Amino acid sequence: MSLVVTGTVGIDSVYTPTGHAEKVLGGSCTYFSAAASFYTPVKLVAAVGGDFAPSYREVFKTFPNIDLAGLESRPASKTFAWGGKYHENMDSRETLFTELGVLTEAPPPVPAAYAASEYVFLANSHPGVQLSFLRQFPKRKLAVADTMDLWINIAKDDLKALLNEVDGLVLNYDEAELFTGKKNPVTAAKQIIRDSKLTFVVVKKGEHGCLFVHKDGIAMLPAYPAEQVVDPTGAGDTFAGGMMGYIAANHAAHAVKDRVHFEVIQKALAHGTVVASFNIESFTLSRLLTLKKAELDARYAEFAKMVRL
Amino acid sequence: MSLVVTGTVGIDSVYTPTGHAEKVLGGSCTYFSAAASFYTPVKLVAAVGGDFAPSYREVFKTFPNIDLAGLESRPASKTFAWGGKYHENMDSRETLFTELGVLTEAPPPVPAAYAASEYVFLANSHPGVQLSFLRQFPKRKLAVADTMDLWINIAKDDLKALLNEVDGLVLNYDEAELFTGKKNPVTAAKQIIRDSKLTFVVVKKGEHGCLFVHKDGIAMLPAYPAEQVVDPTGAGDTFAGGMMGYIAANHAAHAVKDRVHFEVIQKALAHGTVVASFNIESFTLSRLLTLKKAELDARYAEFAKMVRL
Repeated sequence: MSLVVTGTVGIDSVYTPTGHAEKVLGGSCTYFSAAASFYTPVKLVAAVGGDFAPSYREVFKTFPNIDLAGLESRPASKTFAWGGKYHENMDSRETLFTELGVLTEAPPPVPAAYAASEYVFLANSHPGVQLSFLRQFPKRKLAVADTMDLWINIAKDDLKALLNEVDGLVLNYDEAELFTGKKNPVTAAKQIIRDSKLTFVVVKKGEHGCLFVHKDGIAMLPAYPAEQVVDPTGAGDTFAGGMMGYIAANHAAHAVKDRVHFEVIQKALAHGTVVASFNIESFTLSRLLTLKKAELDARYAEFAKMVRL
Repeated sequence: MSLVVTGTVGIDSVYTPTGHAEKVLGGSCTYFSAAASFYTPVKLVAAVGGDFAPSYREVFKTFPNIDLAGLESRPASKTFAWGGKYHENMDSRETLFTELGVLTEAPPPVPAAYAASEYVFLANSHPGVQLSFLRQFPKRKLAVADTMDLWINIAKDDLKALLNEVDGLVLNYDEAELFTGKKNPVTAAKQIIRDSKLTFVVVKKGEHGCLFVHKDGIAMLPAYPAEQVVDPTGAGDTFAGGMMGYIAANHAAHAVKDRVHFEVIQKALAHGTVVASFNIESFTLSRLLTLKKAELDARYAEFAKMVRL
């Protein structure tokens, strides 16, 4: 139990070939915590500015499992804002603008009540910031970090330092190649583990699913066979949220000493896949706002049947 | 039981970034039957020319389950020959030459002893030729066809006629899009089934595995996580061979009326995946020539663990 996520709560503007949504609640912490909240209570650490209207905060109330005590408000600052445009086939996107706002300031404090958190997800951020957050959770049993091409390009040493302290890394297919110079994702993931103190790496391949390379073995998982993708925003964060939510809710029952059992993470990836498959069905966060746990369970059962041999 | 394959037995020359093999035994029937023979006896229908040296025929003796009664020899003709070159990342290949030889002549006769075959695989060929073969197996319980972009482009009506008489179609990701104009492979496969009398379509995605769309449901399967691909030649045919071999060996036990059970084909695809994963480890057919059933079984068990939830 006791899952915490650090990252961004922001204001997104998204344009796709079928429509757009402007100035809506977004950010990695938002998508992650919405997804994880279907499995377990989740604590959120992020900062927002004076332009973060009460209506944005209201949206979170749809998810009673999300603790906002760590959402710091800075009246004199601006909230992180992002605008993105997806092209026809949804597999490439263009960043229209990024207004860093509070992200250029000191990271928000971690509430004292969060310090005992056992499951930690460090959503995409500068690896130095991720590391400073990580060290504020001394009772952690499992810590997983996300990253992106930017940090691999400009802060590789900080990222390597981070990978000596977290247990797991989640990154995209092309980022795994960028990080290692190895095109084969299995080879790349093994190399990242060998050169760090990581226990596992999850390589995300979008519509082709994901690859899970762990010190105890390898697993692969296809994506849910969605026919209609309306808006991929938040796919990676909801995937991570479903995964970490499931682990936090089920680890204790399956733990091997201090290490989360391979099979628990393997199942967790399937839960992440299924939550993410709902998220991309509608614009921004809207599908998760109406999602029922029973729908999630039903699709998980359907997905498991599609994959199981 | 009683599996038959129609297609080509040829002479291949293959060039890859790491080496080459010239004038070696190849062809769709060869790869298919080698793979299928690990599961069940397989009968082969193809023609070769006067240049088909006895040493090529000898190679088949490594696989005692392959019946060559349907391999017609035409002393005055030339064997089908193909030369191909793979580029650095192995995901694109260039055809260096194609000498059709016997393929420009009448298709070989089906031996009388083959007429009662119950499982039929029509390896890639002109769909009109595939249809004429198909009709020579009146006792068939399951017939599956392969195809390629060429026939979709120049013989689409013949292909559509074929799809009204076979049960399953195997094709590549980009061919499914070419055939239907639908980029989403689930949508494409569903449309192919809707517009034909097919029961199922298998969309092959190379390193990303395959998608299986059947009237009774959908399944997805990742590829085996190979780190070293030496030569992809025959990957599709060995995949089909493992799949059809498993079905022929296991259908009776699991059949639902006249329709092969969804779960049998789902498992069969995994067997196809595993045989193909061995094939690409070495040049041309060489890995299958030394493969032991115990190795195949061990990797199948490993693969099932990687996929199973």
